[in-house]
Amino acid sequence: MTGYTMAVTLDLPYDAVVPQVKSALADQGFGVLTEIDVRATMKTKLGVDVPDQVILGACRPELAHRALDAAPSVAALLPCNVTVRSIGQGTLVEAVDPAVMSSLEHGPEVRAVAVEARDRLWAALRALTLVGA
Amino acid sequence: MTGYTMAVTLDLPYDAVVPQVKSALADQGFGVLTEIDVRATMKTKLGVDVPDQVILGACRPELAHRALDAAPSVAALLPCNVTVRSIGQGTLVEAVDPAVMSSLEHGPEVRAVAVEARDRLWAALRALTLVGA
Repeated sequence: MTGYTMAVTLDLPYDAVVPQVKSALADQGFGVLTEIDVRATMKTKLGVDVPDQVILGACRPELAHRALDAAPSVAALLPCNVTVRSIGQGTLVEAVDPAVMSSLEHGPEVRAVAVEARDRLWAALRALTLVGA
Repeated sequence: MTGYTMAVTLDLPYDAVVPQVKSALADQGFGVLTEIDVRATMKTKLGVDVPDQVILGACRPELAHRALDAAPSVAALLPCNVTVRSIGQGTLVEAVDPAVMSSLEHGPEVRAVAVEARDRLWAALRALTLVGA
């Protein structure tokens, strides 16, 4: 755990969790705009082996639009990354805490967006733990 | 300007700047792993019109590998976003300041990576101002 992420650990294999994460995000209105296969990238670019990991760029367009309208520089902090990483027999799902955004870019609208994004990301993470239970 | 980004403004049209940004990033060893067309996304998803903007996910694999090896949760903060946005007759290029990463995730290795990433992103931004001069 870190101060800038929100995470859950699931007792399920990586390959099973990735689609569940996408589905849980979709249920909260987040589309996945970007997807980086970290393992494949490190293998291709550096020839090194790292555990399975993907970085998903999640975006709820209505929230992104409100934040960008209030503070255009917030674009540099979007989308909300959600990572899925193989750890031992299980899988860690870790999202950047949207509170980071509102700690960097002040103002009531960005704060409101961050609060809603945070609630929705936590709801997605909680839903995953129910699937895995 | 914000406390969490580094930016330059160019007196050139958006369409000319985007490829220059990619080239300047490549010269500093950053590949572009992701690309979000903000205007197209907002138009498609919400039916709203916003200025031309792209969010590029820049990654120098050697730096990413060092950071992830030292602190796996840093994945939630990668890649380094570089945004290109049409403003009036010119274009703003704005990168997230890697110092944000080392302010959130402490430790000497992440700090060293952030310092190098910051230097290289500034070098890329400076190079753009020379192209536009």
